[in-house]
Amino acid sequence: MELAKRRGFFWPSYEIYGGVAGFYDLGPLGTRLKENIVELWRQHFIKRQQHVVVEIESPIIGPARVYEASGHLEHFTDPIVECLKCGRKFRADHLIEERLGIKAEGLSPEEMTRIIREHDIRCPVCGGPLSEVRRFNLLFRTTIGPYTQNTGFLRPETAQGMFVAFKRVYEVSRQRLPLGIAQVGRVARNEISPRQGIMRLREFTIAELEFFFDPEDPWHGGVLDELLDRLGDTKLRLLTADAKTRGDEKPVEYGVREAIEEGIITTPWLAYWMAIARDFVLDLGVGYNDMYFDEKLPEERAHYAAQTFDQLVRVSRLGWLEVSGHAYRTDYDLSRHMRYSGQDLRVFKPLREPRVVERKIVLVDPRWLGRTLRGKAKEVMEKIRGLDAETVEKELKERGYIEVDGVRIPADKVTIATKKEKITGRKFIPHVAEPSFGVERLLFVALDHAYTEKDGRVVLLLPRRIAPVKAAVFPLVRDERLVKIARETWWRLLEAGLYAIYDDDGSIGRRYARVDEIGVPVAVTVDYQTLEDGTVTLRDRDTWRQVRIPLSNVVEAVAAFVNDNALSLDAVAERLGLKGGK
Amino acid sequence: MELAKRRGFFWPSYEIYGGVAGFYDLGPLGTRLKENIVELWRQHFIKRQQHVVVEIESPIIGPARVYEASGHLEHFTDPIVECLKCGRKFRADHLIEERLGIKAEGLSPEEMTRIIREHDIRCPVCGGPLSEVRRFNLLFRTTIGPYTQNTGFLRPETAQGMFVAFKRVYEVSRQRLPLGIAQVGRVARNEISPRQGIMRLREFTIAELEFFFDPEDPWHGGVLDELLDRLGDTKLRLLTADAKTRGDEKPVEYGVREAIEEGIITTPWLAYWMAIARDFVLDLGVGYNDMYFDEKLPEERAHYAAQTFDQLVRVSRLGWLEVSGHAYRTDYDLSRHMRYSGQDLRVFKPLREPRVVERKIVLVDPRWLGRTLRGKAKEVMEKIRGLDAETVEKELKERGYIEVDGVRIPADKVTIATKKEKITGRKFIPHVAEPSFGVERLLFVALDHAYTEKDGRVVLLLPRRIAPVKAAVFPLVRDERLVKIARETWWRLLEAGLYAIYDDDGSIGRRYARVDEIGVPVAVTVDYQTLEDGTVTLRDRDTWRQVRIPLSNVVEAVAAFVNDNALSLDAVAERLGLKGGK
Repeated sequence: MELAKRRGFFWPSYEIYGGVAGFYDLGPLGTRLKENIVELWRQHFIKRQQHVVVEIESPIIGPARVYEASGHLEHFTDPIVECLKCGRKFRADHLIEERLGIKAEGLSPEEMTRIIREHDIRCPVCGGPLSEVRRFNLLFRTTIGPYTQNTGFLRPETAQGMFVAFKRVYEVSRQRLPLGIAQVGRVARNEISPRQGIMRLREFTIAELEFFFDPEDPWHGGVLDELLDRLGDTKLRLLTADAKTRGDEKPVEYGVREAIEEGIITTPWLAYWMAIARDFVLDLGVGYNDMYFDEKLPEERAHYAAQTFDQLVRVSRLGWLEVSGHAYRTDYDLSRHMRYSGQDLRVFKPLREPRVVERKIVLVDPRWLGRTLRGKAKEVMEKIRGLDAETVEKELKERGYIEVDGVRIPADKVTIATKKEKITGRKFIPHVAEPSFGVERLLFVALDHAYTEKDGRVVLLLPRRIAPVKAAVFPLVRDERLVKIARETWWRLLEAGLYAIYDDDGSIGRRYARVDEIGVPVAVTVDYQTLEDGTVTLRDRDTWRQVRIPLSNVVEAVAAFVNDNALSLDAVAERLGLKGGK
Repeated sequence: MELAKRRGFFWPSYEIYGGVAGFYDLGPLGTRLKENIVELWRQHFIKRQQHVVVEIESPIIGPARVYEASGHLEHFTDPIVECLKCGRKFRADHLIEERLGIKAEGLSPEEMTRIIREHDIRCPVCGGPLSEVRRFNLLFRTTIGPYTQNTGFLRPETAQGMFVAFKRVYEVSRQRLPLGIAQVGRVARNEISPRQGIMRLREFTIAELEFFFDPEDPWHGGVLDELLDRLGDTKLRLLTADAKTRGDEKPVEYGVREAIEEGIITTPWLAYWMAIARDFVLDLGVGYNDMYFDEKLPEERAHYAAQTFDQLVRVSRLGWLEVSGHAYRTDYDLSRHMRYSGQDLRVFKPLREPRVVERKIVLVDPRWLGRTLRGKAKEVMEKIRGLDAETVEKELKERGYIEVDGVRIPADKVTIATKKEKITGRKFIPHVAEPSFGVERLLFVALDHAYTEKDGRVVLLLPRRIAPVKAAVFPLVRDERLVKIARETWWRLLEAGLYAIYDDDGSIGRRYARVDEIGVPVAVTVDYQTLEDGTVTLRDRDTWRQVRIPLSNVVEAVAAFVNDNALSLDAVAERLGLKGGK
């Protein structure tokens, strides 16, 4: 944390005004690191999945209707309790957990109030009595435009933007399933009293994918098979809800296909995206054994989820930290938006070949109906057409008549016939699997796993692809001839689109230390030999090994080195046909 | 607009709920295009300026104190008027402009009310009478946390995040000026009744740079000179406020240095960044004569600006559209935040060598003072030390005495002495030049300038670097052997990090048309000759010229072609040592 602040990765926002809990700035290095992490996420979740995933951008502010439909107005709450003496407010479940050491998540406000009364829990600040526990909605509220009744909310997830726009995205994407809609953007959650620094923010960035598929044919022909084949035999470490209920605490390793086939992950796309999430987090520099997927118990799940796994990563001091959630949202969201908007959000899936099916229909003797009902006959006839033949058959059997619109029709006037129908396809609401990442947490996790000390100082072993600064250029000493070459070299790196540092301040050892501390993968040093033979030194941050290469090859050597974490400087030199080593 | 919606560049948000004015979604192609535009902006404003510019990210939500300090709570308003009959609300200046054809921007609410009364302007919808005009604040308001008094606002510009964090960024950037702090992020402005589609949004993305410099030494030694030299003889088309006042309507061309030297642009850094803005917008595909900088008249400027130029681009049907603003914000913002936060936001600039200066000081005969004031003497002595010697001299000359704390001190008891002081540096508040871009407008402008029709269909001539999809791969017909090669080729492009389309649906002509319409720069076609000699066709979107190259070189050829707008396919083939042409 000290390094993060001192070197400009992140710090609390609004510091000069005393700060506001739950808000952090990303500094120059933090912003670069975040951008690289987002780019890596895009590589895994969008670029390599282009045939089934697109990216969109929707607004942060939304009208109230959207969050009524999504269920957030009703369900997106935390329990709050107020001190009746000093007026301070607290998260009730956290207060109970801190005081009694028992788990309070998922309890109702009434239950929490009862516990508080029973154990005489009081205000932790002034000792005053506490109010009843009530629900506090975590949506930031605002007003859109000049009419005060036009309430708007800041989105707590980017997901609703994808659900609301689903039909249009589906149309511009040539009306094919499966279809993933991804979004990277800011979200806001009005936490009651966030106290965990950058780990629990009131405003942060989410990288989210809503993946729409046919629940009756999730494999979509060969689409999923091809993707799973590409993965090879990826293993997932899972701690299932069942296992937790049995008291297990250790995750168990499953193959992705195995987890699907055994029904441990209830829908195959959730499993596929968990495997991609695994690879992505490994690429951030997290070890395989420092990560697993933890299935939420039913009472821990969000209101829209039928199954949820959290991806947990071990971080120093804090234990296991959730970096992503993987939720099977079923058709919950689209169904709700259909109901609230009155729009048909179903998709039509044509059959390869139209099929003729026999369907039972209900017929009633029309002459009898006309005689009995006269003017009302037409209307009742309409209703009869809409009846379900199975139900009618059952009623006739049980009661000997059916009743339509208050009219009793005896069994002998009713016929159940069969009719042939041509079916060209099927209309249905797609189901959704959602992987969702908190980007600031990924940033924290990447820094935490990169942090090492060597010879009494910090070296940040960030994977090269996400390192905020790719290279440093130093003249060995501040000699005008060396400075000139070093600055030209630095400028060539910039022109090639790389972030690079030029530094001629202090001893070369201090300069190496400064760039090691922020994880610069490679340093280029111009020295007196450069003046003689036109070569410079490249130094590897991780091994401190140095290799001499011609000045003219610096840009391509640096580019090759920083794009591939597995490549040594010697291998780079060899690949470029240069002799390496020193 | 039709193309934008049909092909998925953008569309109104929340369509299924009837839409909300001022909000747009970016679709799959729009999101890609926007990302490429932002990346190009970073290239111009950050990457190539790394030694003087860093990027940060700060929150959208801010506490009220920040927007009191920034002046937005007081000044960031539009005039609003309400119909007393139907309750509808309108922007008063727009209403007057529409009705009377006169300019109302900058008038006070009282003046507008008077005009409305004089001309009996009524509700344009129901004909009812109108209320008095009042100011409507455009900040979206919310509440941070569970305490209702903690008002927060959504930022209307990213700038305040940079001002508030300036001191810390300065510290982590080795305490050097000049220092640019850039940010790309969402902002929100609660427009009264936005009606211009994606051109006037309530929520949009800004790409902004706050550039801090020493107002007494803006050239900062050779820093600015080196940057201006790099630009060469860039010309800016300017329409100055003076020229407008004289009735001129045509911009005049100036060299960048000329505009600085003649004082047309009042601070050199504003001019430098306008030149960079010029180059950036040219790279979006806008012609030189379709762009100029329009100086705002004093009454049109924002409350913080001493001089402002808008960068205007000609767009079809709409005329001239503002895509960026270039404001000389002086020390307005930092001074205000100093006052409101009580923190010292000045920077200390050491002199190269400490300097000894003579300073005039005010002395008063201490014995006289002690005798006259006794216990109060010490206090008054303190105050005398703080007096400005020049002012004292003037007062003595005019009145023969000075008055301190109600004590009259006659001239003969006062001495003006000179004292030698060693000065090691100077403390001052940096001044700021700000280029600020609306990203969605850039996107619109890029699309508008790319839109062409050829042979009766649309071709989108987007500069290759910002094209959302870089390549398309087609099998000539749906022959299994061709499909296999085409899909492998497409997959290699994806693995290389390129966005690419695979398409085997319909005639090859229709497929070319589909990708021309969304601006895909190059199409790769696998045909029967491929099976014979392993070559494929590359087709240039702009010229429709085709070149055959070996299948094995497709990725490098496409990458080279899309990264350089000036390169022909023949030149690419030649560069790779392949024979081109067909």
